[in-house]
Amino acid sequence: MALQIAGIVDTRYGVKGCDFLLPYGLASLKLVEHLARDALGETHDEIRLPTFVSEDVLRKEERVVARLRNLREREAGEDLGDLRQVLDDGDGGTAATTSGRDGIYRVRDGLLLRPKRGSLAALCSMLPLWIRSHADLPFRAFHAAPAFEVLRGRHVPLLQSAERTVVEAFVVEACVDNHAAVEAAVEAAQRILYRLGISFLATKRPDWSSRPGAWYTVAIDALVNGSAVQVFSSSSLDQAYSREFGITFEGEDGDTQYPHVSSSSLDCSRLLGASVAVVPGPILLPPAIAPIQVIVVPIFRGGGGGDEAVLAAALRVRDDLERSRGLRCRVDSRMGRRRPGQKFAEWELKGVPLRIEIGQREVAEGTVVVCRRAAGGRTVPAAEAAEAAALDLEAVERDLSLASDARWSDLVRMLPGARLEAGGEVTFEGGAPDPGFVYELAFCGTERMAEALERATGLTFLGYSLKMYRGDRACALTGKPTKNRAFLATSIS
Amino acid sequence: MALQIAGIVDTRYGVKGCDFLLPYGLASLKLVEHLARDALGETHDEIRLPTFVSEDVLRKEERVVARLRNLREREAGEDLGDLRQVLDDGDGGTAATTSGRDGIYRVRDGLLLRPKRGSLAALCSMLPLWIRSHADLPFRAFHAAPAFEVLRGRHVPLLQSAERTVVEAFVVEACVDNHAAVEAAVEAAQRILYRLGISFLATKRPDWSSRPGAWYTVAIDALVNGSAVQVFSSSSLDQAYSREFGITFEGEDGDTQYPHVSSSSLDCSRLLGASVAVVPGPILLPPAIAPIQVIVVPIFRGGGGGDEAVLAAALRVRDDLERSRGLRCRVDSRMGRRRPGQKFAEWELKGVPLRIEIGQREVAEGTVVVCRRAAGGRTVPAAEAAEAAALDLEAVERDLSLASDARWSDLVRMLPGARLEAGGEVTFEGGAPDPGFVYELAFCGTERMAEALERATGLTFLGYSLKMYRGDRACALTGKPTKNRAFLATSIS
Repeated sequence: MALQIAGIVDTRYGVKGCDFLLPYGLASLKLVEHLARDALGETHDEIRLPTFVSEDVLRKEERVVARLRNLREREAGEDLGDLRQVLDDGDGGTAATTSGRDGIYRVRDGLLLRPKRGSLAALCSMLPLWIRSHADLPFRAFHAAPAFEVLRGRHVPLLQSAERTVVEAFVVEACVDNHAAVEAAVEAAQRILYRLGISFLATKRPDWSSRPGAWYTVAIDALVNGSAVQVFSSSSLDQAYSREFGITFEGEDGDTQYPHVSSSSLDCSRLLGASVAVVPGPILLPPAIAPIQVIVVPIFRGGGGGDEAVLAAALRVRDDLERSRGLRCRVDSRMGRRRPGQKFAEWELKGVPLRIEIGQREVAEGTVVVCRRAAGGRTVPAAEAAEAAALDLEAVERDLSLASDARWSDLVRMLPGARLEAGGEVTFEGGAPDPGFVYELAFCGTERMAEALERATGLTFLGYSLKMYRGDRACALTGKPTKNRAFLATSIS
Repeated sequence: MALQIAGIVDTRYGVKGCDFLLPYGLASLKLVEHLARDALGETHDEIRLPTFVSEDVLRKEERVVARLRNLREREAGEDLGDLRQVLDDGDGGTAATTSGRDGIYRVRDGLLLRPKRGSLAALCSMLPLWIRSHADLPFRAFHAAPAFEVLRGRHVPLLQSAERTVVEAFVVEACVDNHAAVEAAVEAAQRILYRLGISFLATKRPDWSSRPGAWYTVAIDALVNGSAVQVFSSSSLDQAYSREFGITFEGEDGDTQYPHVSSSSLDCSRLLGASVAVVPGPILLPPAIAPIQVIVVPIFRGGGGGDEAVLAAALRVRDDLERSRGLRCRVDSRMGRRRPGQKFAEWELKGVPLRIEIGQREVAEGTVVVCRRAAGGRTVPAAEAAEAAALDLEAVERDLSLASDARWSDLVRMLPGARLEAGGEVTFEGGAPDPGFVYELAFCGTERMAEALERATGLTFLGYSLKMYRGDRACALTGKPTKNRAFLATSIS
């Protein structure tokens, strides 16, 4: 509802699960896309994949998935099929099965709307046409487009909607492995989340909830209202896709080789949703994605000649902020009925991070009043308005970041004492954990233990933090020493 | 094929009818979108409609269509149903019938992919929520998004593809009529087409091929290889949509009124396709949509120290062109095997309109060589390179425009002598017209006569030119005096 009032999305559209993006929300979403483009544009070419993908292409992906599962089962020496539906969990939905309950929109036989994870296979189907020799590598491309998902749960604007804007990046390399590509993508994503003041967890997913077919997956979950919402994932596909799709290149020695593929996906709709969902009451748009960073409100008295000078001063301040600092700025020049206080309230509801007020006194004194939301205003010389605004916006960003740290600390708790029973069940000494929190634990256990933990808590085993413990800790289930730091949470994947 | 070589689209994607946009083609398509945004951005807010639309919403549109048809039949005093399938012709496809052969992709019962003309109904379903009083008007919005169409003919990249990028604009006004809105949209579209050097016809469609449900439709057809490809249309919906969708506003006197709605659509994919399809041989991208307007090629000798100075000079020229003129410019700094002639040929295949060459002699002399495609190079002082490039790009645009006029004159012929027989058939004294041309005629006839003309020629009656004849001419069929200037052509709608 706050999103509707702010002019971000309207959820009353006739198709359930769809967000109708309003001008202000679209402008903000484009700024999120822009952050991703900025991170990728130097090194990646932008392409545009068709909205459609053929079932055939996704069947090839299924073969990759099946092959990897068989390999892992052989390694594990057991059939993991009973443990969980490998294909129906994990990274962002489901694999490309033909069941129809897999979250994929089918237009007609063999023709699908590109699902959240379908771009990689669609791209790989073209790569044999484009990659011939080592000189064609590395191939780096990205695209920004809607991804489609049949909702199984309720519709939450931006966070859980049938059509979300994702930026996906693909790297095809002639190297021994592609850890560096995954690492770079994860770091770029983290930098964006910091700027948006989103509390998050970055984890290496366990095998069973890695992207199906991936050698491994690193994902980032935003912590939104106690749930972990996946906003990013990056996977190393190793050479599996190259082999299945027949992507080869002639090496420098003239031999035929399979390149390594990695793929990353940043969910821009969810980032926007997460960055505004975390504040109770009116939203506050982080400066990096606020379509209006500074609203300049001239305080009109009505009647008398002073209003024109006030408006002129407001316009001058806007021009100065735009030109000297490149700030996104607007003047609320509406005359008439609305009182200044009403204007202030309107812009607060829209989440504008900074306000500048100029009245007749300020014009006379050559000053402006710069107001951050919670804080009161401070008077600065008009000539320093741009600098003051830029500093205050930085301060807003810093505060959002601090607030996100504080939310993180409030939300993430150590898992209370758990016991692994003889039958493989997990019990809790002090009662089961509260599903409204995220739980951290030292964990060295097996997949079966992780699943027992999930059953006992009703939470999802997210994976292993990229920041391991410095020293050994006792595993929460086995008691054995481990540096692995794992997380459990209510998860939206 | 030329498009594939130029790096614009790859048509070998696994789903028939889909274009795979390559980086260079996407960059150019975005520049086309940009031209539309430039024309709309000042006055219209950008929104983003969901990709899905419900069948219910399109059913409402059908009721508008049926009502208007009944009205027209009453006015005409005859049943037009036998004449042609009103709903299955005309402006960009078909109406929202449930037949399944209407060019619409159905995802599941009641859920459609937004067809080319479905955005208006989708938007109108929201307008009662947003428009309450005269203060909410005029409402002006646009969106840029893919529109989907099940292809009935063959796939022609960009021109006839299942998914094309359209920019649609909507105006909702509290006025007596909305001619001005339609007129402004048509003029803006024409300005864009001139800049792209596309030969075109702007016609007021006859009733039966106006947008179904529209009071009238003005459309623009690009003339591509002898066919008229619809690239733009603007329709006045009058109050019909307001009444059907319940869009009302409180007038200044407190009375409830229905606003007037108009809707325009510019097909960006087709504009790109039309602007590169018209030149035989290698494509030439019009400067307005060329991702690289100027390619700077340093002529390396290999060995010797002069190459570094040449490269430095090339980079300086690029910086100057970018900074002082805002030109999109790139330096081809590839060293090694490729000879200058090979580089020139590569960039010509990509349709780059202008090339600047710099070799050691130019460095020594402080000059550069500016080359337009067909024309030879001319040597100018390096300090004047930016001005020369800007002038040459203007000249390229002018030449494209002249060439499009020439193509128009070659392609458009007066309809040879036609006779209306007693049975209502049309015959031609000197044999039927050649379907590879566009035919102009003075025409004052009825819908039945126009249909007889279509049957006799195998061409489509496009409509009436916005530029009427100054003086009366004899109607090609009835011989009666008329100022109406009509066109017949092979049409892709």
